[in-house]
Amino acid sequence: MGIHKVHWEDLRSYCQKLIEAQGVSREDAFIVADSLVDADLCGVESHGVSRMAIYLKRLETGVVSKRSQVNVEKEYPASMALDACNSMGMVTGVYTMKRCVEKAKENGCCFATVRNSNHYGMASYYVKLAADENMVGVTGTNAPPNIAPWGSSKPYLGTNPLAIGVPTTNDPMILDMAPSVVAMGKVILAAKLGKEIPLGWALTKDGKPTTDAAEGVKGSVVPIGGPKGYGLALFIEVLCGILSGAEFGPHLNNMWSDFENPQDLGQFFCAIDISKFIQVDRFKTRMEQMIAEIKALPKNDGVDELFVPGEIEHNRRRERRKNGIELSDIVYEELRELGEKSGVPFLI
Amino acid sequence: MGIHKVHWEDLRSYCQKLIEAQGVSREDAFIVADSLVDADLCGVESHGVSRMAIYLKRLETGVVSKRSQVNVEKEYPASMALDACNSMGMVTGVYTMKRCVEKAKENGCCFATVRNSNHYGMASYYVKLAADENMVGVTGTNAPPNIAPWGSSKPYLGTNPLAIGVPTTNDPMILDMAPSVVAMGKVILAAKLGKEIPLGWALTKDGKPTTDAAEGVKGSVVPIGGPKGYGLALFIEVLCGILSGAEFGPHLNNMWSDFENPQDLGQFFCAIDISKFIQVDRFKTRMEQMIAEIKALPKNDGVDELFVPGEIEHNRRRERRKNGIELSDIVYEELRELGEKSGVPFLI
Repeated sequence: MGIHKVHWEDLRSYCQKLIEAQGVSREDAFIVADSLVDADLCGVESHGVSRMAIYLKRLETGVVSKRSQVNVEKEYPASMALDACNSMGMVTGVYTMKRCVEKAKENGCCFATVRNSNHYGMASYYVKLAADENMVGVTGTNAPPNIAPWGSSKPYLGTNPLAIGVPTTNDPMILDMAPSVVAMGKVILAAKLGKEIPLGWALTKDGKPTTDAAEGVKGSVVPIGGPKGYGLALFIEVLCGILSGAEFGPHLNNMWSDFENPQDLGQFFCAIDISKFIQVDRFKTRMEQMIAEIKALPKNDGVDELFVPGEIEHNRRRERRKNGIELSDIVYEELRELGEKSGVPFLI
Repeated sequence: MGIHKVHWEDLRSYCQKLIEAQGVSREDAFIVADSLVDADLCGVESHGVSRMAIYLKRLETGVVSKRSQVNVEKEYPASMALDACNSMGMVTGVYTMKRCVEKAKENGCCFATVRNSNHYGMASYYVKLAADENMVGVTGTNAPPNIAPWGSSKPYLGTNPLAIGVPTTNDPMILDMAPSVVAMGKVILAAKLGKEIPLGWALTKDGKPTTDAAEGVKGSVVPIGGPKGYGLALFIEVLCGILSGAEFGPHLNNMWSDFENPQDLGQFFCAIDISKFIQVDRFKTRMEQMIAEIKALPKNDGVDELFVPGEIEHNRRRERRKNGIELSDIVYEELRELGEKSGVPFLI
């Protein structure tokens, strides 16, 4: 028992086959597997292959559609309102961002909403697609409640992530953040391990600051900057839930426990064509100048290096592509069992 | 000595005349005066008529252009790259957001950058213009450094505000926030009053948390959520400074001390036409449902009412339009002197 080191391409190929075994097309299964494995490569394990079991269960129960389809409900030169028809979130996410990029190349920018969607994994995955095309990429998704409006003790808003990315001469610079101090997942993990959490991470179900992780799990996570993070979460909800026509806040169905009613998540995607504002080379040179200036600033005691957003994830991705992804016993065994169940040979 | 209560329209008219006395057109002077007085109405005094002295001085010294002009450098159906020609920030800000709204009505959305700009006051002013036209409005500006990149002690990024607003059936919902826990202005004020500041507001010039306001003034303000707020400030800088071709970070000239070199600030503006995604009435009904649900949530001990972003400001605006704006002695006397200097009768 312990840690299992696997090659990322083997892991991706195995996950793809597991998804295909549920009746999903080869192309769509690849997109989902690639997004999950990329999260593990970047160190965002919460959105990695540990999600395979629930993804497959949702396909198997039919609460998520095996066949991906997107209906264009309204389309203008710089906008699209899409119905994801309860498809897998990654498949419609990649489709939507790519179409936003195409339309931004024509018209300068494009903003799209998606309703009837599902969990779309790591948000940075989509903005990287845009940045690789010399665009500013922006996306967000809503999620079931974990954040209480400021002054209340009752969660109403999800830890709705916001991701934004731009190209540089090297790796794209990518910010992918939830508007809470920490993810609820970290509080749940501390509760499982019987550890205390720092004050400022979570509130009890009565809205009181707590260091007791178990109490935090029953309560809510704290938004960054108090009312500011609450406001950010709320506006991401407006763009993802209200504007798209999807469900919102506490009306979103639960991914883990409800296998009858689709989640009806909402997402937004935006691409802005850099060349329509400034020469792309000049943009990248200016980015490099800014990054170099930041990295050369004085460091606080105990700080070895200053980073720009996404840099740590890019470094991890390079290292893990070379040296392998470490899977815990639990995830490794879960993946093996999923293969046994569906007759996919376990080759990782 | 004490507090002077003035009528908001008298105050606006007086400020407009003071700006006109510097050779600014009647229409442009009205926009600037209206934005400043609206900030005082909303309780955002830091961006209100207390700025009149520096605004007038910058016009008088010619470091800000008296005549407003905008050159369109690149334009596509959903984008504009503009040169503000060193005009007053409010005048080009209103122009740009209005053009974004027009273009979004045609094409779904529009994103614009502005370079060679100046201080544009309260960011929420522009998103309200968009929300009043049934648009999602978004804007941001860069500003001289007050935030240190996470892990450093040296400010590199401004407390670059981000504002976003949408219509409801009543007041628009508007978030206008800096990515720092508090504005540097609050730390400066505490230092002046010899008061301690809470831990978590500011860092010393060596990057250490401090409760000593005077040390905080020499240092930096803390970004919300640590690296997250740093990332937000950085990406607002990318959109405002890097993409627009304006200056950025520590290269921005100082508004208060440099009367020779224009600031060369950058701003971005975005309008998204709600009707291109969902029926406007349905959007507003859904907003009202969400707001009503939030306001009905249980309240923590000591909390009388739960608010959505911008609500407190709308309430203040209504109250102060009715009962008057309270100006401190300092600001009141400053305004009187500005009138004496330029021969504008003091009628507030």
